[in-house]
Amino acid sequence: MTELFPIDTVRSFSNRVFMAAGLADEDAEIVTDVLIHADLRGHASHGVTRIPIYSQRIKAGVVNAHPSVKITRTAPGFLVVDGDNGPGPVVSLQAIDAAIDAAKETGISIASVGHSNHNGAGSYYVERAIEAGCIAFAMTNAPPSMAVFGGREPVIGTNPIAFGTPAAGDAPVLLDMATALVARGKIVEAAKRGDAIPEGWALDKDGRPTTDAGAAEKGVVLPMAGAKGSALAIMVEVMAGVLAGGRFAGDMGNLYSDWELTQDNAHVFIVIDATRGAAGDRHGERVGELVGMLKKSALAEGHDAILMPGEIEMQRTAAMQAEGIALPPNVLADLDAIARQVGAPPLQATVQA
Amino acid sequence: MTELFPIDTVRSFSNRVFMAAGLADEDAEIVTDVLIHADLRGHASHGVTRIPIYSQRIKAGVVNAHPSVKITRTAPGFLVVDGDNGPGPVVSLQAIDAAIDAAKETGISIASVGHSNHNGAGSYYVERAIEAGCIAFAMTNAPPSMAVFGGREPVIGTNPIAFGTPAAGDAPVLLDMATALVARGKIVEAAKRGDAIPEGWALDKDGRPTTDAGAAEKGVVLPMAGAKGSALAIMVEVMAGVLAGGRFAGDMGNLYSDWELTQDNAHVFIVIDATRGAAGDRHGERVGELVGMLKKSALAEGHDAILMPGEIEMQRTAAMQAEGIALPPNVLADLDAIARQVGAPPLQATVQA
Repeated sequence: MTELFPIDTVRSFSNRVFMAAGLADEDAEIVTDVLIHADLRGHASHGVTRIPIYSQRIKAGVVNAHPSVKITRTAPGFLVVDGDNGPGPVVSLQAIDAAIDAAKETGISIASVGHSNHNGAGSYYVERAIEAGCIAFAMTNAPPSMAVFGGREPVIGTNPIAFGTPAAGDAPVLLDMATALVARGKIVEAAKRGDAIPEGWALDKDGRPTTDAGAAEKGVVLPMAGAKGSALAIMVEVMAGVLAGGRFAGDMGNLYSDWELTQDNAHVFIVIDATRGAAGDRHGERVGELVGMLKKSALAEGHDAILMPGEIEMQRTAAMQAEGIALPPNVLADLDAIARQVGAPPLQATVQA
Repeated sequence: MTELFPIDTVRSFSNRVFMAAGLADEDAEIVTDVLIHADLRGHASHGVTRIPIYSQRIKAGVVNAHPSVKITRTAPGFLVVDGDNGPGPVVSLQAIDAAIDAAKETGISIASVGHSNHNGAGSYYVERAIEAGCIAFAMTNAPPSMAVFGGREPVIGTNPIAFGTPAAGDAPVLLDMATALVARGKIVEAAKRGDAIPEGWALDKDGRPTTDAGAAEKGVVLPMAGAKGSALAIMVEVMAGVLAGGRFAGDMGNLYSDWELTQDNAHVFIVIDATRGAAGDRHGERVGELVGMLKKSALAEGHDAILMPGEIEMQRTAAMQAEGIALPPNVLADLDAIARQVGAPPLQATVQA
C-alpha cells in the first residue's frame, strides 16, 4: 500500500542517507532538496526514488563526493563550469547561482556545465532563477535511450528542456519536458511498479513497439512529434553536451549500468534579467496578462480548464505540502535497502520517532 | 503548370516590386533575400508567395517603408530593439547583426525586438549568426491562429523556434519549426492551391476537425505533441511578445486581414559565441562528431537515411540553385497582379528579356 510521509520526514531521511554515503552535510541537503522538489511537483520519477542510485554511485566512488567545481568566466556573460564529476545537483546549483549573478550584470548569461552527473529536474534551477527575477532555460543531456527521427537505435538521450519566467497572478509559466514523447523516467517508474505502458512510447531492443515497460527500459523511447522532437533533442545535445567539452550522446555513461565509467553529464543554463526588457519591472505583470488571455479560451471537448505549463505541478505541490509525499511499497523497500546499505536510519523509524 | 525561374530573375523581380511599393533599394534587397532563402530551403510558404501581401502592406502604409530602427543596449548583452513598424526582415537583420556584435564581446547576447512585422523564416537570421561563428536561437510570435492545449479557439500564434550551430562536415544542425503540428503557412499554401490537408492539422472555426484547407485557414491549428507544443508556443510568446514590450497573442494584428492596425510582431534572437565554450575553436568539429555519431544509427522501417535538422533543406537549396525556383500558376498570377498594382515589370517579362 502506498503510504504518505511528511515532507520533513522524507527530507531528514534523505539527508542522512546522502551523508552516510559520503556527502558533506550541505551537499546532502542540496541533493535532497532537488529530489523532493520533483516529488512535490508530482514527478516522482525524478524524486526520492532516485536516492538509491544516487547514493550507490557516490558510495562506489563513480560520483565524486567532494568535487572542486571550477567556474571560468571566458567572457562577461559566459561561464564554463567544470563539475569535477560531482553530484549533478551540487554542481548545477553553483552553476545557476553564478549564472544569475552574471545575468544581473550583463543582462543575459550562459553557464555551460561539463563533467557533471544526473541533476534531477531542470525546473528546480529555473525556479531558482525566477525567484531572483530572471527568465531561465535549463537543458541537460542524458545517456542514449532514444532514437533520432528515422532510426531505431538509442543514440541520444531524452534531453529535457525547462523554461520559466517570473509571472504575476495565480499561474506560473514553468515548463519542464523531455524531448521524448514521454520521459524515460516514467518508463523506469512503470517498470519498477510492473505496470504496462501505452503503445507508441517506446520500441524494444529489437526496434519493435512494446507495451512492456521492462522491455522498453532495455529499448529505445521515441521523440515527441517525430522529426521536430528529434531536432529539439539534437539542439539540447549541442547546447549541453557538445558545448561543455566532455563526452556526449553515445559516449556518455549510464546512470544505472556504468559503474566504472563516469556519466559525464552536461547541462546548460541560460539566464536573462527580465527587467532589462522594454517593459522593465512590468515583465511579470505582462506575463500575468498573457496567462489571463490564454486561460479565457473556450474549452476543447474533454477539458475543464486551460492550464498553464507548471500549473498542475503547482497544485500538486500545494496538495503534498498539506498531505505529505506518497511512496509506493516498492520505492519504500528500495529506500529501506539503501539505508541499510549505507548505514543510515530507515524511513519508517523516522516516522515512528 | 508550375514553371522554373532562375534565382536571379526572381530576385530582380522581387526587388523591383518592393522598390515600387516604396522601400529603399537596400531594404528591398534584404526583404527579397529573406523570402528567396525560404524558397531555396523548400519552404515556399515563407517564400516569394509573400511578395504580394508584404508589398500591399507597405504600399498601404500599414508597414512603415522607412523605419528608424532604434537599438538600446540596456545591459552589455541585452539589446532592446524598436522596429518602428518597419518590414520584419529589415528590422530583424539589424537586430541579429547587433546581437552578433554584442555576443562577440559578452559571450552571449539577446536582442528583444518589438514593433516589427512578419519577418520570414527564422533560419535566415540563424544562418547569419552561424556564418559569424555563433550559435543562435530565433523565435517570433505570430497572430493568433492556434489553440493552446485544452482550448478550441485561436488564442496564440504558431510561434516558431529556429536554432542552429556552426558545424564541421557534410550536414548542418539548423532547425526551424512551428510549434504547431504544421506551420500555418502550409495551410495557407494548401488553401491557395485548393489542396486538402490531413486530418489532425487543424480545427475549423467551430472547433471541429477539418481536411478543408480553406476552412482550416479560418479556424485554428493544433500544437504539436499536445501540452508540450502548447507550452513551447507559450514560451515563445513570453520570449518574443511579452519581453519586447508591445502587444502580444490575441492583441496582435493579422498579416492578411488587419489593414488599419499594425501587426506589432515581436522577435527574439539569442546569440552565443561558440568559441567561448570549453572546446574553444573545436566546437564546430565536435558538432560534426555528434552528427557523424547520430547518422550511423540503424534505420527504422520506411527510412533510408538519418537526416540532420536542416539537411533536407540544404539538399533542396543545392537543387534549386542548379534548376531554379518552381512557381505554381496561382502564385505566378498573384505575382503578376502585384507587379501591375505597384507598377513594376512582371516576372514573365523579366524571363523573356
